[in-house]
Amino acid sequence: MQMTDWIAKKRDGGELSTEEIEAIIQGYTTGSIPDYQMSALCMAIYFQGMNERETYDLTMSMLHSGETLDLSPIKGIKGDKHSTGGVGDKTSLILCPMVAACGIKIAKMSGRGLGHTGGTIDKLESFPGFVTGISEERFFENVNRIGIVIAGQTANLVPADKKLYALRDVTGTVPSIPLIVSSIMSKKLASGADVIVLDIKCGSGAFMKDEAHARALAEGLTRVGRLAGRKVCAVITDMDEPLGCAVGNAIEVKEAISVLKGETRGELLELCLVLGSCMLTEAGLAVDDSQAREMLTETITSGSALKKLAELVEGQYGDSAAVYDTSLLPEAAVTVEVPSERAGYVQHIEAEQVGLVSMHLGGGRATKESTIDLSVGLMLHKKVADYVEAGESLATIYAPNAPKAAEAAELLRRCYTFSDTPVEKPKFIKDIIR
Amino acid sequence: MQMTDWIAKKRDGGELSTEEIEAIIQGYTTGSIPDYQMSALCMAIYFQGMNERETYDLTMSMLHSGETLDLSPIKGIKGDKHSTGGVGDKTSLILCPMVAACGIKIAKMSGRGLGHTGGTIDKLESFPGFVTGISEERFFENVNRIGIVIAGQTANLVPADKKLYALRDVTGTVPSIPLIVSSIMSKKLASGADVIVLDIKCGSGAFMKDEAHARALAEGLTRVGRLAGRKVCAVITDMDEPLGCAVGNAIEVKEAISVLKGETRGELLELCLVLGSCMLTEAGLAVDDSQAREMLTETITSGSALKKLAELVEGQYGDSAAVYDTSLLPEAAVTVEVPSERAGYVQHIEAEQVGLVSMHLGGGRATKESTIDLSVGLMLHKKVADYVEAGESLATIYAPNAPKAAEAAELLRRCYTFSDTPVEKPKFIKDIIR
Repeated sequence: MQMTDWIAKKRDGGELSTEEIEAIIQGYTTGSIPDYQMSALCMAIYFQGMNERETYDLTMSMLHSGETLDLSPIKGIKGDKHSTGGVGDKTSLILCPMVAACGIKIAKMSGRGLGHTGGTIDKLESFPGFVTGISEERFFENVNRIGIVIAGQTANLVPADKKLYALRDVTGTVPSIPLIVSSIMSKKLASGADVIVLDIKCGSGAFMKDEAHARALAEGLTRVGRLAGRKVCAVITDMDEPLGCAVGNAIEVKEAISVLKGETRGELLELCLVLGSCMLTEAGLAVDDSQAREMLTETITSGSALKKLAELVEGQYGDSAAVYDTSLLPEAAVTVEVPSERAGYVQHIEAEQVGLVSMHLGGGRATKESTIDLSVGLMLHKKVADYVEAGESLATIYAPNAPKAAEAAELLRRCYTFSDTPVEKPKFIKDIIR
Repeated sequence: MQMTDWIAKKRDGGELSTEEIEAIIQGYTTGSIPDYQMSALCMAIYFQGMNERETYDLTMSMLHSGETLDLSPIKGIKGDKHSTGGVGDKTSLILCPMVAACGIKIAKMSGRGLGHTGGTIDKLESFPGFVTGISEERFFENVNRIGIVIAGQTANLVPADKKLYALRDVTGTVPSIPLIVSSIMSKKLASGADVIVLDIKCGSGAFMKDEAHARALAEGLTRVGRLAGRKVCAVITDMDEPLGCAVGNAIEVKEAISVLKGETRGELLELCLVLGSCMLTEAGLAVDDSQAREMLTETITSGSALKKLAELVEGQYGDSAAVYDTSLLPEAAVTVEVPSERAGYVQHIEAEQVGLVSMHLGGGRATKESTIDLSVGLMLHKKVADYVEAGESLATIYAPNAPKAAEAAELLRRCYTFSDTPVEKPKFIKDIIR
């Protein structure tokens, strides 16, 4: 009966108390509140929203529904990074070694990919022998010794979110800012980091299609994180086209290594410098962004970030030789080029569709149970605003066989639209909330 | 996956197609669509509404989820009446015999009471021996011979509504006009009547608290009914105070008999004349309201309506002598008066609270499984705008014992508020939609 009253209260625009929110999450996690009441409440929250206090209480109630990681055995400042998910997003593979080389401790729990977006854990498994499910002992030993671990989630963190997200996914209640904030932040808080940087993707290839929603989400996340006593900042970045050029697993690792070697610059590096600067300044390791950028750039020129990646791989039983010789990473059986059918300026590249092309090749999971082919994917040679001649290659497809390659090439071609007149490149870093 | 899309469509203000609505109701009734998706959809409908076409489709899909009564073996025009539920509402007990005496065939399926509102079936069981669960054969035989049957629902009418209403009740999704319309009209259409009159209660004691919502509901109901090819009209009536004076079961039957005998007039009779006029004119048995009212009034002065009630009771194995000698109806063990503590004009009587007093005495059901005491209840002697002296009786309590009577008297006293200056009686018939 109480839950019915709470649903009606929220439905009518009322504010749920701290105790009510705690009772709801506890009741739902333990099963005394059924799915059908929770989904009705989520829909009411979708329409009526939640204020800052309610969102914070919801986050904390979810956080307390399960275990939390105690990172106190780790000396120094612990950093974490979260992205709302995009296509070609290999930022963690670059950023984490860079900031670790600057002294931030990275003890990261990361997820696997699902659908058109990839997971960092999957990508790291491109290194032969790499183990994501390491022991707790090894986890802490590595962070203290090397300064960086990226492992799969083992602990029972935020069971309330696991249950609630599965429900929201099938009841049309995913796109609600307070529900997204509590889902993301409860997990980030449970992971124990002191400094958290958030990459909020915005655009046709992202969950947040427009800047206003992306900003509302970024503000909600940073506020809740700060109320919980963490240092948090958020960067809103463009996801109208894929991030960088590589989309896949091993192929994204190669692009990340190329950035760490200083061979590839552009948005991908810029994003890592911006996120890294936030992390270093928030952590007090740099006095300002200019010093932070210098420190981060130095990790590339000195090779210390690349070395850190090699240490990470080695620390998790992987073959670190592949960091220096990327031909040791999985390679696809067939590669084909995708020649452009016309000349013109690239106007748009459907990021989500590009992700689906990679999935079609076997590089992504349709369901949680799918196995993936680490070798496949694609490399874009033309991005938005680039000029292309008719017949010039738009991208290279890495496929398991020729028929798949031909299909993927055709699908990829359809992701591109062109303009006869020059196209303005959309602003990549749209805002920084700190 | 499809249901998730339909939920999102409605959530975003879209219109569900006829096929989609059919698939939803069929899927929900057969169990392939789970409660947690249905409750989310209901909440989305609460916020986004449904247009006339969607509401009609929802009603028809629900109607087709189960059996429908085929009243074609009944000669003549079949009439039905529905009230949205109020305290002291014994209208059916008066109206049905009156219109039946005018030639309308009443083949009515009626429900039991739950909570603070009573059910016609319960009240009729005050007649010793009265059977509500008669055979189908007897049902049709009685309607054709006597012209009136009021029975409990036996057929599996609108199973979708049974399931959906139980869900809405615990998910805060009851107060949605399209959902209420489809719930009421699917059942009324399934019951097979040609002419349907609706009594939409409005006020503090009713589900619809204000006239705007009551009117929206009335219009929704009449529109859907007409789209389904039935003749429908609706009357919006005041439920700021109980209807008439008696609240209980046997005691309401007594008041109804008193109206049918011509001994009691006032709002209760007026409501029956208005609803009855709608029914007779829609049925084509009267050319206009004036003729209809004459016909209806004649059923009282001639005693034909009272005789029809006696025939109804007898036709369902009850003791019709009780119609003429109401002392044969169940009588409470204890009666006490409720003297007013002050003089003044009655400003307000909390209808819902009065219903709860009757329930407290044992005259209503807390749960579907509760048994009720037909003899208990109360009779109001003072209604809104009446002047009362200090010490004068506000009401008589009919109780099973003295302690219960004393408690009920105290509770009832609290239902009254007074004014030192004369109070204007609220308009009883607020609108007629035909």
